[in-house]
Amino acid sequence: MIATPISDILGGHPLRILIAPSGFKESLGPEHVADAIETGIRKVLDDNAVILRKLPLHDGGEGFARAMIAALGGVIVAETVTGPVGLPVESHLGFVGKDKKTAVLDMAAAAGLRLVPKDARDPTMTTTYGVGQLVGKALDAGCNKIIIGCGDSGTSDGGAGMLQALGVRLLDSKGEELPRADGGRSLSCLNRLCWCSVHPRLRKDAAEKFEIEVVCNIKNVLCGPKGVARVYGPQKGATPSQVDLLAAGLERLAQVAQTVLGRDISHAPGSGASGGLGAGLMMLGAKLRARSEAINEYFELDRVFEKQWDFVITAEGSLDCQSTNGKATGDVARRAKRNGAQVVALAGTIGEGADGCYGAGIKAFTSILRGPLTLEEAIVQTEALIVDGAEKVIRMIMVGLALGRRNV
Amino acid sequence: MIATPISDILGGHPLRILIAPSGFKESLGPEHVADAIETGIRKVLDDNAVILRKLPLHDGGEGFARAMIAALGGVIVAETVTGPVGLPVESHLGFVGKDKKTAVLDMAAAAGLRLVPKDARDPTMTTTYGVGQLVGKALDAGCNKIIIGCGDSGTSDGGAGMLQALGVRLLDSKGEELPRADGGRSLSCLNRLCWCSVHPRLRKDAAEKFEIEVVCNIKNVLCGPKGVARVYGPQKGATPSQVDLLAAGLERLAQVAQTVLGRDISHAPGSGASGGLGAGLMMLGAKLRARSEAINEYFELDRVFEKQWDFVITAEGSLDCQSTNGKATGDVARRAKRNGAQVVALAGTIGEGADGCYGAGIKAFTSILRGPLTLEEAIVQTEALIVDGAEKVIRMIMVGLALGRRNV
Repeated sequence: MIATPISDILGGHPLRILIAPSGFKESLGPEHVADAIETGIRKVLDDNAVILRKLPLHDGGEGFARAMIAALGGVIVAETVTGPVGLPVESHLGFVGKDKKTAVLDMAAAAGLRLVPKDARDPTMTTTYGVGQLVGKALDAGCNKIIIGCGDSGTSDGGAGMLQALGVRLLDSKGEELPRADGGRSLSCLNRLCWCSVHPRLRKDAAEKFEIEVVCNIKNVLCGPKGVARVYGPQKGATPSQVDLLAAGLERLAQVAQTVLGRDISHAPGSGASGGLGAGLMMLGAKLRARSEAINEYFELDRVFEKQWDFVITAEGSLDCQSTNGKATGDVARRAKRNGAQVVALAGTIGEGADGCYGAGIKAFTSILRGPLTLEEAIVQTEALIVDGAEKVIRMIMVGLALGRRNV
Repeated sequence: MIATPISDILGGHPLRILIAPSGFKESLGPEHVADAIETGIRKVLDDNAVILRKLPLHDGGEGFARAMIAALGGVIVAETVTGPVGLPVESHLGFVGKDKKTAVLDMAAAAGLRLVPKDARDPTMTTTYGVGQLVGKALDAGCNKIIIGCGDSGTSDGGAGMLQALGVRLLDSKGEELPRADGGRSLSCLNRLCWCSVHPRLRKDAAEKFEIEVVCNIKNVLCGPKGVARVYGPQKGATPSQVDLLAAGLERLAQVAQTVLGRDISHAPGSGASGGLGAGLMMLGAKLRARSEAINEYFELDRVFEKQWDFVITAEGSLDCQSTNGKATGDVARRAKRNGAQVVALAGTIGEGADGCYGAGIKAFTSILRGPLTLEEAIVQTEALIVDGAEKVIRMIMVGLALGRRNV
């Protein structure tokens, strides 16, 4: 058999491929993942064989502020804040456009899981204090809108630290102030909030109004059996008794929030986002917004999908039953399905329930791994493994295309 | 988009798929691998969509005797022999057909790596004594042909133990006999062989003649920089100094063989097979045969490939630069390429140099792994991972087939 030229296999028409990956948590951001996939594709298909577009997917988590500034224009400003374990960390926030009246930040840049050393993963102690400091910077700068991305959090303090950083005092039943930046463990002693010393722009009588938009997974709620402590606590390193402690503390926070807001937010959509930071921000009047809707607006997904694609490659660190349930991967799969494109997913790990992805429009998926290795080893090699995984997918696809031209 | 039925994607013609895998070493034999691949394929394609044939590939290694009896008819007989570390092991040999004049055995059943406990992997001490015992049984039974499969050995004794089991005495320069079943470490003291007490049928004046056919990788040689001690010793657990010891011993064996055979076999094709067992068997008059040729004859590969296949799935534990160099995978790839079929390979590990497989006719390959794990964990799950890997390959192929029917 003479090898069939690729242009023949493609019938003379280049493949129109959209590369739309999420980031690989604690390893590689979505822009780099998209670049790696492109490299892999180009090992097989040259410029004549493919039309490529990259659409890195963000979810409000790590890298959200930088991606927003990349998409909308503006500047990133570095800020040193108190990190999740109480030590100073280099953080940042963005100011959109020329007037810089809109700030954008991701909570992960000040309180993300990656900032919590592996041997210090105790979510009863980690704090969102640094998030409050970033919000304070935006208020100081005169912004009238602050967009806060939630995701990849290393905390479970209900936003208590964030409130403290903005001057809200957390008091116990004796009127004693709870320790600063102490994490979720103190919350079960919370009795009431004192707003006497808050940031001037947070006062009821402040002249200049502002809005806070929280981009989050609105399926996360603060309390109950599906509350954030029980669902995400173990991932952040909580033992079963720590989960109980955190759940009790967030219950207390919900009761205090009811006196502040005049309504029960214990099961409000997004109240549990980023370890309950959503609830804390609600007490500042924030509006919580479904991230799929916000991402669509800011990153113009609709416009990208107005074009006809043959083939969409998405990717994420772990593909499992959650992937098509409120996560970016599922959103892309649904859009691609409507678009008539074939969707394939790459993942570091194929987790439990991944077969459910077939129903959501993902036609095929595969792990990027080449052989037995540890998670730590995989993380170090992620970029090379993605390049390699994308090449392998394209080669498999080409086999299928060639089979379509077989003699029968 | 309405999902396209599979029959439409296939243009109404079922895919003709040949499943031709090798075994996964220390884990799953080729028959079971083929069954697992079939299970994975049938998760996607029903009887109307596919015509399947299974062709498990053997290479003379573990399972060769059973596969030969399955292919040619005959009986398997159990035998307890001295295993590679000197302890008794349950082994077996086969007698072909009704007259039982042909015996078939694989050295791995008596001296294979799997029979060497992980904490005892010292190839200076492991012995082929049990192989000699099996040969003795075949001679006792009156066989006039003995087919011996080489591969998956855990030994590096040049067949010294095998010779001893058949009554050949290994003597040092003082005429003292070397210890029995002592492994390759004693060979550097070897001075000459004494044939006085050999098995009656091995005597020069024996009335009933017989032939020994050794099915092996004829690229393996006994001595020199590409000699078997240097190439395979480390895989079997040898330290660098042990490799030197073994190489020196096999050099001595080659010199002694020259006095026996009147010619230099140190670089003879196959002399290094199974830790030099090939050389030992040559001293018994054995003919060494390229396994690809022998396998073709016994398992009728030519006939299978007379039929037209669309698609061939092969598999092996580790796909690397060796895979298409004298191994069964490469042979199948070349046949499939001539046949006009597309070839895809599944592997547990994608090793160094695997990209070389593309040149040998393998169009695409992938690892069966789903996420980070250890080799030991992977071995336990091999069957499920192969089912899953085959399903994933078929789904990718179907994406390619569907793309071939896209609107352009």
